[in-house]
Amino acid sequence: MDKILCVISGGMDSATLLYKAIERESVVEAISFDYGQRHKKELEYARALCKTLQVRHDVIDISAITPHIGGSSLTDDIAVPDGHYTSATMSITVVPNRNAIMLAIAYGIAVAREATIVGAAMHAGDHAVYPDCRPDFVRAFDAMQKIAVEGHGNPDLHLWTPFINATKTDIAKEGESLGVDYSLTWSCYKGLDDHCGLCGTCYERREAFEEAGIDDPTVYAITGIVK
Amino acid sequence: MDKILCVISGGMDSATLLYKAIERESVVEAISFDYGQRHKKELEYARALCKTLQVRHDVIDISAITPHIGGSSLTDDIAVPDGHYTSATMSITVVPNRNAIMLAIAYGIAVAREATIVGAAMHAGDHAVYPDCRPDFVRAFDAMQKIAVEGHGNPDLHLWTPFINATKTDIAKEGESLGVDYSLTWSCYKGLDDHCGLCGTCYERREAFEEAGIDDPTVYAITGIVK
Repeated sequence: MDKILCVISGGMDSATLLYKAIERESVVEAISFDYGQRHKKELEYARALCKTLQVRHDVIDISAITPHIGGSSLTDDIAVPDGHYTSATMSITVVPNRNAIMLAIAYGIAVAREATIVGAAMHAGDHAVYPDCRPDFVRAFDAMQKIAVEGHGNPDLHLWTPFINATKTDIAKEGESLGVDYSLTWSCYKGLDDHCGLCGTCYERREAFEEAGIDDPTVYAITGIVK
Repeated sequence: MDKILCVISGGMDSATLLYKAIERESVVEAISFDYGQRHKKELEYARALCKTLQVRHDVIDISAITPHIGGSSLTDDIAVPDGHYTSATMSITVVPNRNAIMLAIAYGIAVAREATIVGAAMHAGDHAVYPDCRPDFVRAFDAMQKIAVEGHGNPDLHLWTPFINATKTDIAKEGESLGVDYSLTWSCYKGLDDHCGLCGTCYERREAFEEAGIDDPTVYAITGIVK
């Protein structure tokens, strides 16, 4: 039986990944990263989701690293851009090399726990801006890790990125068929009581539900949003 | 002009790397990792060496990660093995995936600082036990990183591991020609006032100087060592 270590953020993509892992009848565990996000809501949602699903969940604190990397509105005191994702607005939300760092740590944990799979929820919608969300990155990372941990941990250990060529709309559709409760997920870059509805991830979230033709359970802070 | 970010431990291999980088007439900076080592002597030596060489030095604290990975006598409460390095004794000094984790973080910093080179001091003596010290790991890691940070940082950024096929004896010889002051380096896994002279890294250190025919400036705690 596989043992899957899922990297989850508290957002809808990785929540769907978690449900998909559970459906595989594997041992499923999850980790999230505290990289000094300006608010911890997504980590709280990740923790609550795992509690609901009875999945072991650990938060890995890498916030001491982020000040050395910087350059991102996700952690720095730069305004979060509103509006639809474009290269121009999204590029300031990049933490350099974030996925390679998080996945390398996930592999270290996976080796220690003798897991067979590291699961991550990168998807096609992020390809334009984040090079470390693309299929060629996933292939190169998996190849690197096969060498790096040879002889340690489970010999079958590999990377699983089932959404690498899926859109967020595809993910929402699959999530509905898996019974994902998206009210237990958080996407917004801002830390308000409700989703702001205006930042890049809120736009993406709203669009995904709308295009998938699924009822959006999210409460948005702004009024008059055309769902 | 190149900007080289060297990953240094405080030991003799990465000290030699640092001198070699400086010889290249590049901008040279250094980082070390606090991964929860049982003693901080090597970090103190790294800091002092950089101060002497007037090189910017930052310690990256990843000690919050290590408890999730575990399994190593370098961080856990397991006795440090004495005697010469062999697979049997060295395997318990492995932190799973340590080099991939540290190098991924180093790349994040290198992107943020627009460095052209990440330098690391892996060498042939570690190949037997540490898969992430081998040439094929270095190639795979460099290939992965080229994809992961495409479009961010300096486009020339690459990994530099000049000792990947060198023995520790080769490194000591090169260090002497570079004028490395090895009294400013620390190898011992134990945290005594002086090098213990008996643990795996002390054995390696003593052997390297002896085989290179170089005077060993190290003070060893044990007496009667045949240098």
